[in-house]
Amino acid sequence: MSVTADQLAEIDRLRAEMQPTRRATAPALEEILYQAWPVLDHGFVRVIDYMGDDGAVVQAARVSYGRGTRQVSEDAGLIRYLMRHRHSTPFEMCEIKFHVKLPIFVARQWIRHRTANVNEYSARYSVLDREFYLPAPGQLCAQASDNRQGRGDALSPAQSARVLGMLKADSENAYAHYEEMLNQREDGTPLDPGQDGLARELARINLSLNYYTQWYWKIDLHNLLHFLSLRVDAHAQYEIRVYAEAMLDMVKRWVPQVHAAFLEYRLGGAELSASGLRVVRRLLAGEALTQEASGMNKREWRELMTTLGRDQ
Amino acid sequence: MSVTADQLAEIDRLRAEMQPTRRATAPALEEILYQAWPVLDHGFVRVIDYMGDDGAVVQAARVSYGRGTRQVSEDAGLIRYLMRHRHSTPFEMCEIKFHVKLPIFVARQWIRHRTANVNEYSARYSVLDREFYLPAPGQLCAQASDNRQGRGDALSPAQSARVLGMLKADSENAYAHYEEMLNQREDGTPLDPGQDGLARELARINLSLNYYTQWYWKIDLHNLLHFLSLRVDAHAQYEIRVYAEAMLDMVKRWVPQVHAAFLEYRLGGAELSASGLRVVRRLLAGEALTQEASGMNKREWRELMTTLGRDQ
Amino acid sequence: MSVTADQLAEIDRLRAEMQPTRRATAPALEEILYQAWPVLDHGFVRVIDYMGDDGAVVQAARVSYGRGTRQVSEDAGLIRYLMRHRHSTPFEMCEIKFHVKLPIFVARQWIRHRTANVNEYSARYSVLDREFYLPAPGQLCAQASDNRQGRGDALSPAQSARVLGMLKADSENAYAHYEEMLNQREDGTPLDPGQDGLARELARINLSLNYYTQWYWKIDLHNLLHFLSLRVDAHAQYEIRVYAEAMLDMVKRWVPQVHAAFLEYRLGGAELSASGLRVVRRLLAGEALTQEASGMNKREWRELMTTLGRDQ
Amino acid sequence: MSVTADQLAEIDRLRAEMQPTRRATAPALEEILYQAWPVLDHGFVRVIDYMGDDGAVVQAARVSYGRGTRQVSEDAGLIRYLMRHRHSTPFEMCEIKFHVKLPIFVARQWIRHRTANVNEYSARYSVLDREFYLPAPGQLCAQASDNRQGRGDALSPAQSARVLGMLKADSENAYAHYEEMLNQREDGTPLDPGQDGLARELARINLSLNYYTQWYWKIDLHNLLHFLSLRVDAHAQYEIRVYAEAMLDMVKRWVPQVHAAFLEYRLGGAELSASGLRVVRRLLAGEALTQEASGMNKREWRELMTTLGRDQ
Repeated sequence: MSVTADQLAEIDRLRAEMQPTRRATAPALEEILYQAWPVLDHGFVRVIDYMGDDGAVVQAARVSYGRGTRQVSEDAGLIRYLMRHRHSTPFEMCEIKFHVKLPIFVARQWIRHRTANVNEYSARYSVLDREFYLPAPGQLCAQASDNRQGRGDALSPAQSARVLGMLKADSENAYAHYEEMLNQREDGTPLDPGQDGLARELARINLSLNYYTQWYWKIDLHNLLHFLSLRVDAHAQYEIRVYAEAMLDMVKRWVPQVHAAFLEYRLGGAELSASGLRVVRRLLAGEALTQEASGMNKREWRELMTTLGRDQ
Repeated sequence: MSVTADQLAEIDRLRAEMQPTRRATAPALEEILYQAWPVLDHGFVRVIDYMGDDGAVVQAARVSYGRGTRQVSEDAGLIRYLMRHRHSTPFEMCEIKFHVKLPIFVARQWIRHRTANVNEYSARYSVLDREFYLPAPGQLCAQASDNRQGRGDALSPAQSARVLGMLKADSENAYAHYEEMLNQREDGTPLDPGQDGLARELARINLSLNYYTQWYWKIDLHNLLHFLSLRVDAHAQYEIRVYAEAMLDMVKRWVPQVHAAFLEYRLGGAELSASGLRVVRRLLAGEALTQEASGMNKREWRELMTTLGRDQ
Repeated sequence: MSVTADQLAEIDRLRAEMQPTRRATAPALEEILYQAWPVLDHGFVRVIDYMGDDGAVVQAARVSYGRGTRQVSEDAGLIRYLMRHRHSTPFEMCEIKFHVKLPIFVARQWIRHRTANVNEYSARYSVLDREFYLPAPGQLCAQASDNRQGRGDALSPAQSARVLGMLKADSENAYAHYEEMLNQREDGTPLDPGQDGLARELARINLSLNYYTQWYWKIDLHNLLHFLSLRVDAHAQYEIRVYAEAMLDMVKRWVPQVHAAFLEYRLGGAELSASGLRVVRRLLAGEALTQEASGMNKREWRELMTTLGRDQ
Repeated sequence: MSVTADQLAEIDRLRAEMQPTRRATAPALEEILYQAWPVLDHGFVRVIDYMGDDGAVVQAARVSYGRGTRQVSEDAGLIRYLMRHRHSTPFEMCEIKFHVKLPIFVARQWIRHRTANVNEYSARYSVLDREFYLPAPGQLCAQASDNRQGRGDALSPAQSARVLGMLKADSENAYAHYEEMLNQREDGTPLDPGQDGLARELARINLSLNYYTQWYWKIDLHNLLHFLSLRVDAHAQYEIRVYAEAMLDMVKRWVPQVHAAFLEYRLGGAELSASGLRVVRRLLAGEALTQEASGMNKREWRELMTTLGRDQ
């Protein structure tokens, strides 16, 4: 992880200060507030601020349903009810702000989620750090043969080493030329005092997609859970999934009851299509159904059988 | 203001508890946290929670501009710069949550601002309170003659009294029939134990638009300022403007530097059209320009002269 | 249905004109373009404009997946694939614009869907028509006993008649006073030429929630399907469900392949929780499972059994 | 411009087909529908589809204001009125869809506008083309000395040549290694049939930010104008400004009256701060005001004088 010395000092300073507040607090999240959680080789994610807790979800629901919620005596039960019935607005009443350092190609996937607020480090204003992502050797996998966008088996050690060598050499070369175009060393002094430097907004275009950027990213809990459900999924690219997994742990510290309901009704559950539901009903009725007789195509049938735990 | 005894007790309970937090706090806002600020005859607005302060705007901007912002030594100057150049994302890094009690016709205008999160009291689940808005007599004005949507002079006392009489009688009558349809008294007991009550989702349709509803409303600072700029405007309907004015005071407690910059660059400023700008330049050059020679139509010319403080 | 004579003439005029276009067209939707589809006693919904067709979804997906989609030879298959895997962006590439006349209480539910564009008739600018919703007698049901927000059995004929009587009388009375406050007859002439009329923005607050309003409502196909999935649901209030059902028929004319996939993977399917999935697996393995042994509470167990077609 | 032969054939095919439609059409936009407009060295922008015209804005406004708009007899006047008073919803009633080919660093700026729909070419699914952006020599400028994010004077021819040389060599090298990692030639055949290729989602991270991507981008007219106002601005980076300028021309073909109002009230106008407005009033009153006496800081004073056409 590449937190700078300045950043570490700032984190320590912020963590040392405690203020009194009348707002709801989430003590388990306060414990790790501001701390950087390492992800990939130079990245991190850390919580900078938050608003609300499990109680805020309940409180919002009770405003909506008025006297109607007096029946539900217990908060955890109400949260489960809201999650189960896909009520979204009470979960929007909590907000969280992260500081994330991440490779640009990950940032490009991430930013597609539009319902968030973002302040990204601008390479028009400032010079990017010499930090680029190199996959761990075990992550260097072949293109999956059965999936247009996934990874298959690991490459051979020799091939893996060659790939890493190319990535490393090209990244270093790109940065050396970036500095040369800027006519500026890392400490800000010019390489050649007799020359101008190329505008930063242009020099940066020589850097590759594995260079790190960073941003503040703020989102409400409902949209965060949606983001996480897509990005902790096995089909998400590994390099974004590791961020999502770290953030899911932070959600557990923040709103443990919402986290539990999310596992029960989203991550651990399953969706059946109309055809899939008909198949389940017929199987439960004792029919010895085959794919051919089911009306489903082979791929959907296979996925359904996997969901149902019936190996073929 | 109609805060229930239950709500008052809840407010006192919440205000009495102080928790330590590592998050940024806004002490002047903490002072009034949870307290209901009366608006109109039965409405209120109160801050339930918030995230961030002036410093959070600065911090977000510094992430974006990196080393580039070291030049701007002073936070207030940076905030002014951001506001002046309409940078929106740093202001999105602060969030606030209000509890508002407001007439339904006001809620209908308010909800048109889509970039917010809302939990509204549901009259499908619960019974609405017997609370309706009656304008203060001074607010009962004639239709403006020069403005399709505004108010003109106050009605005569006699006419005003007649209008109030109709509004009051119709509102009370609507509620009496609402209870009769529900077959339910305010204390929840049936009017006629031998009968069913009409479904709440239908009975409510007999109530008029001046009945009060309530909601939790959560929004980021950038979008809140946009909302306020539209709703504290003299063209906004009085009944929503008074809410906006109360909230603008709360913004001052929360983020005083942002508030000052907002007055300087938004509320107190002016927009010139291309034609208007040409007129100003010609006037400054000493030309004795008339509307006819200006190329502007009468209405735009008149508005420009008012903006420029030149009475005609 | 209350389409005015002016509106009917305008509809005929628009329908008579055909223009050549290079854009994708949906002939079955063109057939009914501009035509008002009656809903409730005075409401309607009609398609005013649209952009894209089934092919636009496919085309957008092929841009995203590039050569990768050559494999999927057939459009309907690709659309099914996209719907099954909850790919949302290709469906956002189609847009549709409706003109809807609807009671205000329905509009208040509808507007909660924020990802749409709306132009609503403004009662600050103009006078509302004398049109209010009266439920058909069969719709006048008692509050459901097992559901905080639903309808139960129909009221007795006598009770039903009494409710309708109150609704009708109160609505008519509200409008009579509305006109009196405005000091204006339906034809625009003053009731009393010697008096001012109350500003429209105030007089309207005397009207009840069953009065009709109208708006243009524009939305992309992805968000429309989300809206429809919530509003054609059996738990949606009847008065909004009938609009959703009419619009679902229009979707079928517009994008028949998307419509079919929506029925298969959304409307006709089912969601299982983690516990529910475990139950299904155990049942399929031949276990004679009871609610008590399942780990699910009674309500979730009952709903699961209903989903699985196993009556208890 | 790098439109492939396949794309050109597709464009010709689409342009040749005319269908009848009852929808509003914009003939001047139909003329160029599907045609690619070259931008930068390999990029383009083209209109794929649209919905609505100037009349749709007027129509939506008339629904909102009802009888109230009968006064405004003329459409262009109403459009000017709406633009002047920053009414946004009528402009949201028009929609347009572009196909854009653009360098990744431009895409990263562009995507920050969240109120649009996007389908981007996925380099997880498919292989990117060997196309990268090289600035024209005249665009290779030094970092601005007075502006943290801008460009200053052109580099010397020698320095310019050296920068271009580095950009070109590094880009070509990155692509050669990309193919080597993928173990795949541009025609899809393997470089070494005895080896696997690295997963596409990883190999792409070696490419630099000047590589081209492409997407479908759909947006409503209101948000498009906001995007254009920011991106045709002199402070926008040249490489995105040229796209914005091309699109502004397309807007003129599509909705000429809206385009004219946009120039008058947005692009050609000016915003004054509260202090700036006071200065203008005092100058108009004949005062010989200096910066020192104005209460404005030097920078804001200088910008105001430039706006007012008063050289210092």
